[in-house]
Formats: sequence, structure tokens, C-alpha cells
Amino acid sequence: MTVYSQAQQPKSTTADLAIDQQVKELLQQMTLEEKVAQMRMFHAQIGVELSEEDELVLSDVVTEKLKLGIGGIKNPGEHLSPERAALLNNKLQRRIIESNRLGIPGFFVTESYNGVDAEGCTSFGRPINMAATFNRDLVKRVYDAVGREARLRGLHLTHSPEADIVRDPRFGRMSEAFSEDTYLTTEMIISAITGLQGDYIGLKSTHIGAVAKHFAGYAQVSGGTNFAAIEISPRTLIDEIFPPFKAAVQQANTLGVMASHGDLNGIASHANPWLLTEVLRNQWGFQGYVVSDANDIGRLYYFMKVAESPEDAAILGLKAGVDVDLYAEDAYSLLPKLAREDPSLMEYIDQSAGRVLRTKFILGLFDDPYIDIEAVSDQVRTEEYLDLAKQADMESIVLLKNSEVLPLSTAKATKIALVGPLLGEKDEEEFSSIAGNKISFITEKGFELTNGEGGVPELLSEAEQREGIERILAAAQQAEVIMAFVGGDEFTAKEGFFNNALGDRENIDPVGLQDELILELKKLGKPLIIVLKHRRTLSINTIAENADAILDCWDLSEMGNYALAEVVFGMDNPSGKLPVTVPRSIGQLPYHYSQKEINAKKGYLFAENSPLYPFGFGLSYTVFDYSQITLSDTLMSVDKPITATITLTNSGSVKGKETVQLYLKDLYGTVVRPMQELKGFEKVELEPGQSKQLSFTILPELLEYTGLDMKTNSGKGEVEIRIGSSSASFSSSRFRFQ
Amino acid sequence: MTVYSQAQQPKSTTADLAIDQQVKELLQQMTLEEKVAQMRMFHAQIGVELSEEDELVLSDVVTEKLKLGIGGIKNPGEHLSPERAALLNNKLQRRIIESNRLGIPGFFVTESYNGVDAEGCTSFGRPINMAATFNRDLVKRVYDAVGREARLRGLHLTHSPEADIVRDPRFGRMSEAFSEDTYLTTEMIISAITGLQGDYIGLKSTHIGAVAKHFAGYAQVSGGTNFAAIEISPRTLIDEIFPPFKAAVQQANTLGVMASHGDLNGIASHANPWLLTEVLRNQWGFQGYVVSDANDIGRLYYFMKVAESPEDAAILGLKAGVDVDLYAEDAYSLLPKLAREDPSLMEYIDQSAGRVLRTKFILGLFDDPYIDIEAVSDQVRTEEYLDLAKQADMESIVLLKNSEVLPLSTAKATKIALVGPLLGEKDEEEFSSIAGNKISFITEKGFELTNGEGGVPELLSEAEQREGIERILAAAQQAEVIMAFVGGDEFTAKEGFFNNALGDRENIDPVGLQDELILELKKLGKPLIIVLKHRRTLSINTIAENADAILDCWDLSEMGNYALAEVVFGMDNPSGKLPVTVPRSIGQLPYHYSQKEINAKKGYLFAENSPLYPFGFGLSYTVFDYSQITLSDTLMSVDKPITATITLTNSGSVKGKETVQLYLKDLYGTVVRPMQELKGFEKVELEPGQSKQLSFTILPELLEYTGLDMKTNSGKGEVEIRIGSSSASFSSSRFRFQ
Repeated sequence: MTVYSQAQQPKSTTADLAIDQQVKELLQQMTLEEKVAQMRMFHAQIGVELSEEDELVLSDVVTEKLKLGIGGIKNPGEHLSPERAALLNNKLQRRIIESNRLGIPGFFVTESYNGVDAEGCTSFGRPINMAATFNRDLVKRVYDAVGREARLRGLHLTHSPEADIVRDPRFGRMSEAFSEDTYLTTEMIISAITGLQGDYIGLKSTHIGAVAKHFAGYAQVSGGTNFAAIEISPRTLIDEIFPPFKAAVQQANTLGVMASHGDLNGIASHANPWLLTEVLRNQWGFQGYVVSDANDIGRLYYFMKVAESPEDAAILGLKAGVDVDLYAEDAYSLLPKLAREDPSLMEYIDQSAGRVLRTKFILGLFDDPYIDIEAVSDQVRTEEYLDLAKQADMESIVLLKNSEVLPLSTAKATKIALVGPLLGEKDEEEFSSIAGNKISFITEKGFELTNGEGGVPELLSEAEQREGIERILAAAQQAEVIMAFVGGDEFTAKEGFFNNALGDRENIDPVGLQDELILELKKLGKPLIIVLKHRRTLSINTIAENADAILDCWDLSEMGNYALAEVVFGMDNPSGKLPVTVPRSIGQLPYHYSQKEINAKKGYLFAENSPLYPFGFGLSYTVFDYSQITLSDTLMSVDKPITATITLTNSGSVKGKETVQLYLKDLYGTVVRPMQELKGFEKVELEPGQSKQLSFTILPELLEYTGLDMKTNSGKGEVEIRIGSSSASFSSSRFRFQ
Repeated sequence: MTVYSQAQQPKSTTADLAIDQQVKELLQQMTLEEKVAQMRMFHAQIGVELSEEDELVLSDVVTEKLKLGIGGIKNPGEHLSPERAALLNNKLQRRIIESNRLGIPGFFVTESYNGVDAEGCTSFGRPINMAATFNRDLVKRVYDAVGREARLRGLHLTHSPEADIVRDPRFGRMSEAFSEDTYLTTEMIISAITGLQGDYIGLKSTHIGAVAKHFAGYAQVSGGTNFAAIEISPRTLIDEIFPPFKAAVQQANTLGVMASHGDLNGIASHANPWLLTEVLRNQWGFQGYVVSDANDIGRLYYFMKVAESPEDAAILGLKAGVDVDLYAEDAYSLLPKLAREDPSLMEYIDQSAGRVLRTKFILGLFDDPYIDIEAVSDQVRTEEYLDLAKQADMESIVLLKNSEVLPLSTAKATKIALVGPLLGEKDEEEFSSIAGNKISFITEKGFELTNGEGGVPELLSEAEQREGIERILAAAQQAEVIMAFVGGDEFTAKEGFFNNALGDRENIDPVGLQDELILELKKLGKPLIIVLKHRRTLSINTIAENADAILDCWDLSEMGNYALAEVVFGMDNPSGKLPVTVPRSIGQLPYHYSQKEINAKKGYLFAENSPLYPFGFGLSYTVFDYSQITLSDTLMSVDKPITATITLTNSGSVKGKETVQLYLKDLYGTVVRPMQELKGFEKVELEPGQSKQLSFTILPELLEYTGLDMKTNSGKGEVEIRIGSSSASFSSSRFRFQ
């Protein structure tokens, strides 16, 4: 068994050598067609089902495909209970093994934006919520649960997590990634992958392989629209976009990497050998397999138009280093013909098929590809996992504003209105279970934000929305405190494909008449608590101005209402911090906190020159006091890192958690430098009156950047160090790195 | 005398060799301090004046500076009449020559965004207006006039034109450049520079040297804010940003180039030897001199922070290839000391000082540095130039909408209201002079847009604006037709410095309550003509929906009202075309028409997937019919260009000019390709009923782009050719380049 520590680069071990030998021997027995079959993956929806009598039912097309073996299958049993999915997957695996001449098993793949994307598994909060916790260990535990639940239902890999840096809230998928920040994303990626993979040792039986995506720059699409062109300068790519992927490979040992839908400065990522081979494998030492994003090999021809035929597309993808073609019917299927015409392709095919086989060996599929179905039900969606989901929710809720209205108690209100378009069906019941019987609720959703169409949703008419507002106002009038659930529903931020399936926006104000609703509610003169639920950053100026309290929930787990209610009623103290900058307007974009120093004086006519809420910001029910920074020395050298120490004191009256954040600001560089960069954080819990000393050691690598010559610059010179509660609230000191 | 044709690269001629020899000999006689003095330029405002008695008055600091000689002086006599400026400049030149040991003259420099930036010269329309004419010859004639008027007052160089590509209307300086498009900008740059420089042959006595700026990528600032960081991928830089500069050097023989305030992918442009030496000189063969933008050598230290001291900044600039330090007091002034410490700097100083001297030889300053003052008054701001300004205005006005309301005649209206915050003081009088005495005008400006502060202007209060709207409505009610002058004043789009001098915006809607004004005017039920005056692209959705006609004037010349009135009353037919895309919202940015093909399917939730007005769009009072395209062949090769022919017919009832536009769309490439690219245009005038056949020859270089390997790709393969009246209205055909 291969055991790696979390922060150690994989090295060739005896086990690896044994696998390599097994792969080599297997390849020698395989025909060209069998090798190429390993390089393909299809979606179970084309014909993999479990009948009511628990029989495996395959379509003709699937049966045909399995004769040569198959690389993998996406989402088998996704709509079945964990136990029945495991049953299906056992039967499916047996069929695969029996169908192909050499008995090669297939791997079964899922995705996991908020838990395993399948029926009956624990639904956790989104990646952006995970990042808001700033809690490495908690996030690792969440992904450990995801990995275990997936494996228990017979899955082996997940096309997650996203290592993309999300800085454009127009992009519909922004909440599928962690953060706008490179360091925070890197830390989350390490937690997520080591969690999913059970520190790599779990891969053989208890956990699943991770597939870090989308390599690279996927979220930097022009205009925030999916599939649009991507422009990133080489230095930014190396310093800001690559690190989470590099950490996924070198620190977290990800089994797989998925290429990006997009191009990168003109070059389609699926046809970019520099990216997928030179950087990923030769520079970083990646040994795993690269999978295409859905249909993207074919898309090199019919969409990106960097290939003049499907044949050219297949060759481009193969030579660039894409090992597995996800879904495309007219791409890698052509490789046998092409390789016979051009035998030089055989080397690439052997390499890619070998990587798939290697993955299957690592996942233990040649040893024992089946699940113990008896064990499934006791281990999926357990109380422990639901508690974990709730814990992550509580630590991800960001208290953006609180004019002494939260937490609520019976002294403040016994009748609360839960209103607004983001109110869910179970909210009242779940809130009541926490609030107890002394508090009663009035609920009025008012109106839906959209007509609920998945393709091109439309907003309800203003008249319909206004009728809803009237109903809400009527309900709110009967309560002492109003909690308004606003933001965006699932249709207002999602993956946007083409003009028949939109998900990106050109406006980041709350959709519809939600601002009008807030203004009307404000007029009632009652305490107004805003619960924000959303999947993209919104410019919430009206809310910020009119609310008495704002709880930014993003997209919580299935336990979200319990977590939220415990926060609202003071059983827990919110401790989430913003993993993104909240701008005042879309016109401020790009507006991440770590912009270049020369943007620092940026100002616009007739507008505030500041974010609405800064990166790293989040309030608490208690008060944390930061001491000044004490440095172990004012001079640092490569051999002598310095240590920065502060004392954090909970000077409020309740227990609470605080994320202490370390930012570094390089005062001079050979190239223009960021305003500041997050380079460390630690989340601590303190009782009222308790103090704790916290130390950060400034290692030289924290100061490195890509210099003038595109090589690593050590970052020597004057440095400002900042430690505080957000990117905009800190104490600072200076040292010299020499 | 050196004579170059417009499209020919400068070559060493006998005259050049003679100059090189003279420069060499002069340098041999100069001290280090004298050489460095040639590399500096100061602004006349530090102490160069002409007394009422016509005596030259210099401050002590200027007198001191002149002892070692001086490279140049910016804006001497800018507030004087042309004759008195010439007098001052003659006296100043004499003083310079007499003050320094070797009698080296200085050059006097201006800027020219809308004519010579000095008192008494003809005020022409802005560069963006020039581009809207799509008329190469007319633009050349305008800049020829500018060059002559500048020389007549004793100036020798202008820090213009801007070769920047402007794609972000948030940027306050967007109208100082020509267009969002590379080809159109390139054509305009060639016209402007050859005009200013009198086809190079004028440099010795009748014209001035051009300084193309800001090299490179200046307008691509992050967030549209001046001085912010600039990210451009290397391929985009070469294919989209460089061409106007390359043409300035190779086709228009610009004497000078100014570096950009900004960085380029992290590297400060003033400290970028690749940009200023490798590309500009080694690759393109530039022989002229490079000047810094204001204070930018010093700014390498105190703003860009890529130098840790003023000394480092000076050395970085010098070694990168900046020959002249504009204004900085604590930068190149340090070079004598630094060169004594490090003699290797002498080579750079000799080179840079030599380039300044060479420029002075080319400008004839060693032969005859004085102006014939008697000749000045007859040749500046002549009737001919004012007519030229008006002609350019008329051809730059873009008719965006016309619901049969324009042109106006006495049959349609005899009483017209001229209203709105962009109404000028002389508008009524100047309109009357064209309209004749059968038409009367009522004028009501209503309100000012801003408080008129240059630093950080503020909008008038909504109450004040509403009072103004009431006054406007009262005036408008008395007329049969309303012409509303709206858009942006000089304070709402200008160069933004830091937080004490703003010019960029984060919102591109018309400022203040102008949309409300439009809606109120619309309610009056009278024909509503909108005259748009502005210096940045605005999202004019409300105007587009409610106006009966829209005349987009940008920023016209001092003859603007006459031109506008002639268009309004049908004495002339508007023929301007949009040199930029008009988006529906700021959230659509970036949104230039030549985006990558993969952005073509870009769509947003709850929003139209199209521009409000496309690039190249502009209506006429007549109707132009385009025939289908006839191709000379469907196969093209390097040796055999093909020709595309269409017939254009004026099928309307009045004479008019049309800009026939040629776009090419490369259907497949090795890298992702633009949706389409303007590659030719021709402006033709047709009488009613007249037809004309127009042919475009597709030369192979029109299809070149930077390929996968960063070398030039020939662009072979399938190509779609489009010829039409805008980027969104065309007929198309296909050919294969093989």
C-alpha cells in the first residue's frame, strides 16, 4: 500500500514500480482497439439501469461498448439509493469485467460540488461555503465524508474539486470553486483532495480519487461567460492561477486532472501540450491521468475551430496529453483508424491507456472491484455526517452586518416573519425545531424569482412580483422581527452553455424587485434581518444600507436551516469570513483584494473607491482584540525565517471563533506587486476573556514570485506584514528580507 | 532632403548618413552633463513667459537649466496667440542657443487631441470623431493642418497621436484614441502621422514630428482606471495592440514614440527593454527617440515600485531605452553622477542624447530654428481649415436612429426647442445662421451635469436637476420639435490621475437624471431628436428606445454646430460610422466586435445577447443597396490574391456617402480566432440612382496572425469574406487560402 503524507510529493515506491510493471504487461496483451477503449468514458444515461427486480439493464449501445472494455462510466446509479447504487455498480462492474477479453474493470465517476452528486448522500455546503469557514481540518473532514460516501455506493473517482480562482461574479459557476484568492484556494484544494482520497491510503478501498479541474484558467473567461476566450499573462498564470493545481499534484497527490473548456491566450486547453504535458507532468511530476471536460475533444473541431476535422481534433487532444475523452462520440473513437495510418500515435495511445490502467490499479479495482452492500446503509448520511454538514454551515455563515439585533431571543421577539423568495418549504418547521415553542413564525415566500425553467429562465413579471411583495408585507406586519430570505435561486447562477441554457449574468444586482422588497420592508420600522442565499457574489448596496443584520449564507447544506437557526438564536456564534470581495457595482470589476499595488489609488468618478465588503471580512457576536505584531527580528534571511506573533483576546461576552489572517505586502519588486497577499490564517476558538498568542513563521517561499526573467524571484527587500481580522482591518509591521 | 512615400519604410539615405555623422561629431564635443541635458524636458509653466512688452521672461530655474542646453520644452506660449507664440518661441530658441556652450537648439512640444493644444489654433474634432469618418484622406488633411499650425507658432513636435486600442469605456481617455479596432486605428495612425509630419518632407520647415503613444497597451488598464495594471497575452499584444505602433514606425515614419504609464503583464513599460528596444528598434527598425510619459521615470520608484530608489529608476529607464525624461526632477538628473560611478552607462547616454540630436537635425533646427512671424496670421485658423474642421465633423456625425424625423425642414417644424445640459452657449446663434430666418429656436439648458470642478467633480443634486428638467419641459412645450443635447460634459470623461483628480467611471449610463429628462420629454408627444455629445461610449438604452432620431456627435470641432445644423436641416447627409461597439450595459464588457469566435455564443441571463449598436454602424438620409459579393476565384494562394467585388447603389433620393466595410473571418486556425476582423474600407459618395462597383484585393498579409509557436501563421484555410455597411450587416462569401 502506498502511503503519502499530506504535504509530501509522491515518489516511486515498490508498490508504484509493481503497478508500472503490471500496466506494462497488461498493455502488451491489448489490441489497439482495447487500448483506445480505456481512453473513453460514457455517461450512464445512455443506458445503464437497475430494474425493479434488481437486474442490470444495459442498452444495446452500452453492451456494444463494453465488449472492448471501457475506461469509465459517469454517474451510474445516480438516482438510486446508496444501497441500490452499490448493487447496480457491482453488477455493472461484473458485466464490464466479463464483457472484455482481458477482464479489465472500469471506474465509475461522479461529481461533488456539495457532497456526492447522487441520491441519498449527505448534501454539504458549496465549495465557496467551505472556503468561508477558513477551517482546513473541517473542510478535510467534509471531503473525507464525501469520499467515503461515494466509495460506499461503488464509485471510484469524482470530477471535483475545482481549483479555479473565481474573480468574476458574472460567471455562473463561481460558487463551485472556493475563492478569489490563490492561497485560500490552495489550502482548500489540499484539504479537499486529501479528504476525498483518504490521504491517498484510502484510494484502494474506502475513498475515491479526486480530479482537480479545470486546468487552467477556466474561471477567467472573458465577460464572465462560460466557454468564452481566456486571457492571462504568463506571470499571472504562474503566480495566481497555477498554485492550487500545483498543490493538488505535489501536495495532495490528486489522481486526476481535468482540462479546461476554454482556451488559454488563444490556445485551446485540450490542445495545449505545454500546459498538459510540459507544465503538469514534466515540471510538476504529475503521474495521474488527464480527462477531457465533456465533449471537449470533439469541440476542438466544431466549437474552438482549432482543428479542421474530428480526426485533427483527436490527434491534437492525444498529443497534448488528454488521456481520456469524456463523452465525445466522434473523437477518440477515431484513434484506431488514425494510429494505423500514422503509427507514431501508438506511443501516445500506450501512454494514455497506461495511465488509465495505472489509476485502476491504484484504486484497487484489479484486486477487489466490488462493494460490501451490507455495510452501505449504516455508513451513508449518518448522524455524524449531518452534524458535520451543520458544523461546516455554521462556520461558513458570514455575519456582514449586525446593528445589535442578532442573536434573537424571546426577549427581543416571540413572533418572527420568515419571508421572501428564497424561503424554502421546510424553513418554518426546521426553524421551529431550534427556536423552541416560545417563538412562533409567520411565513410568506411572496413570489418565485424565476419561472423555474432550467434552460433560459425568465423573471416573473413585475406585477406578479409586486403582488408577492404585498403578501409579504401583510405577513411581515404581524411580526416583531422580519427575516427576509433574498439573493438568487438555483436558476440565476449556474453553468451557462449556449443561448439555450444560460447561467451567467451581466448584472450582479439582486434579480427582480428584491431591492424594492427590502425598501418596503424597511418602511415597516421593524428589525430587519436579511438572510442572503446565493451562488454568485451580488452587489447588495440596498440591503447593506437598509438591513439591521445580514447573514450571508451562500448555499448551505441540507442542514442549513438548523445551522442558520442556531446562529440566529445565539446557540452558536457565526465565524465565516468572505472568501471573495463584494464590490459595490459590476463596474468595479476586476476587484479582488490582491490586485496590483498600482491599482491601489484607483478611483472612479461619482463612486466610492472601496469594496462594499472586503475579502476576509466577517463579524462575530463577540469582540476580538488584536495586539500589535511582535516580530522575532526585523531582518530575515533564507536561513533565518522570522516569526510574527500577536495576541488575540476575546473581549466580548460569548465564546467565538476568529480567523486570524496573515497578509504580506512586498514593498518593491522587479515587477509590479500585489497590494497584499494572504499567506496564512489560523482559526481559533476563545472563551470570553480568554487570550491566545498566535505565531506565524514567515518562510522564504511565501515571498517568492515570478520575476522579470520569468524565473522565481526570491522576493528580497522591504516587506510589510499585516495580521488582522480581514484584508482591510489589521495591524502591521515591517521587516527586511535580505 | 529626405523624402519617403507614405507606405515606405525609412532607409538610410545620404542625408541620414550625413546627420549621423553630424550627431557623432557633436557628441564628441559634449560633456556628460551636456549630453544628459539633451535627455530632459521641462514644462514651460515653470517659467517661460512673454511680457506685455514682448520681452522673454524666464524664471531662475529655467535660466539655470538652459546653461547646459536642453532637450526640449513643453507647451511654450500655449496661452498666446499664434503670432505671439511664434515671437516667444523665436526668442526662447535664441536664448537656448546662446545659453549653451555648443549652441544646441531645443525642440518645443505640444499635444494635439483636437488640433494644436494652444490658443488661437483651429479646434478640430477628437480622434474618435476622426475615426468615425472612416476617411483616410480627410483625416490626413486635418492632421496636415495641425502640423502646419503647430510649426507656424514655433513648435516642433507633438505628443500625439494615440495609437492605443480603446475597448473599455470606463477609461476616461477613450476619445483621445481612435477606435476599438486594430485595423481602423492603424489606418488612422498612418493618416495622422503622415499628415502631421507633412509626409516626412515637411519636418524640416513646415510640419512637426509626431510622437505615437502610449507604447504599449496603455488603454487596457484593469477596470478602465488610469495607471492600473495591464494584462495582455503575448499573442493579443502582437496581433491587436502592436500593429498601429508598428505602422507608425514602418509606414508613417513617426519621429518619436512615448512609453505607457502602465505596466505590461507586471513589467513597467518605462523599464521594459524588450518593448522599447527589442521590439521597437531591433524588430521594427525604429530610429527615432523614445520619450517618457510625464514623470514616469521617477514613478518607477515612487509609484510602480519596481525600483528601490530614484537612482535605480533612472538606470532602469535608461537601459530600457527611454531617451528623454519628461519632467521628472529626480531621475535623469542623477545620470551624470551614476555614469561616473558606472561608466558602462555612458554608452546608453551617448545613444539617447544622440537620438535627441538626430531629431533636431531632422527637424532642421540646426539650419534654421526660427519662424517667419509675418506669415503666421494668414496661415493659422484660416477659412480653409475651419471648413476642413466642419467637413470632418459632418463626416463623423453618426446617425444612430431616424424614424423619419430627420432631416428637418420648415414643412416639419418652424419652432424648435434646443434643450438639455449639453447645450452650449453659442448653439442657438450658430444653429440660426444655418437654419435661416423661417425657423425659430427656444433654448433651455436646464441644468449643468456637474459642479464643474476639474479635480473631483460632483453631480448636481437631484433636486437641482429636477428643477432644470421642469424648465426644459416648459421650453420644449412651446416647440414643434425637440432637440435634446445630452451625454457627458468635459468633467465626466477625462484623464483620471489619483483620488484627487478623477476621470474614469464605473458606470457607463448617462450621468445624473438625463434618462429621466428623456422620458419626460418623450411624454410631450413631439418629435424628439437626441444630440449626443460625449467623450466616452455610453449605454444609451433609454435614449435608443425613446428618441425619434439620434445624432451621435462625440466631441466635434469649433465648427460643430454648423456641421450639426447642416446635417439636421438636410444640407448635408451624415456619413459617420461607429468606431466602437455600443454595449447595452457595462456588464457586457469587454465587448468589441472582433472578440474571439468562441465568444460568439455568449449570452447572459435576463439580457439581450447583442450590442445596442454594432461597430461600423451608421445610417444615412439615403438608402444604399449592396449587391452580393463576386469573387475573382474561390481559391487564393500567396502568389494569387483574389478580388472581391460588390456593386453599391444609392437607391434613395439624396446624395450620400457610404463607408463600405470589408471583414474577414478565418473559419479555422491553430489558435482560436476572432469572430471577424475589419480588413478594409472605402468611403464613396453617390448621387441618387448612381451605382459604383468596388473591389477589394485580399492580400495574404490580411490573413496572417500569430500562431501556436508565436510565429506568423499564414492563415491558410477556409475564410469567410463579408462586405457591408457595418460589422452586423453584410453579404458574405467564402474562399480557400491554400
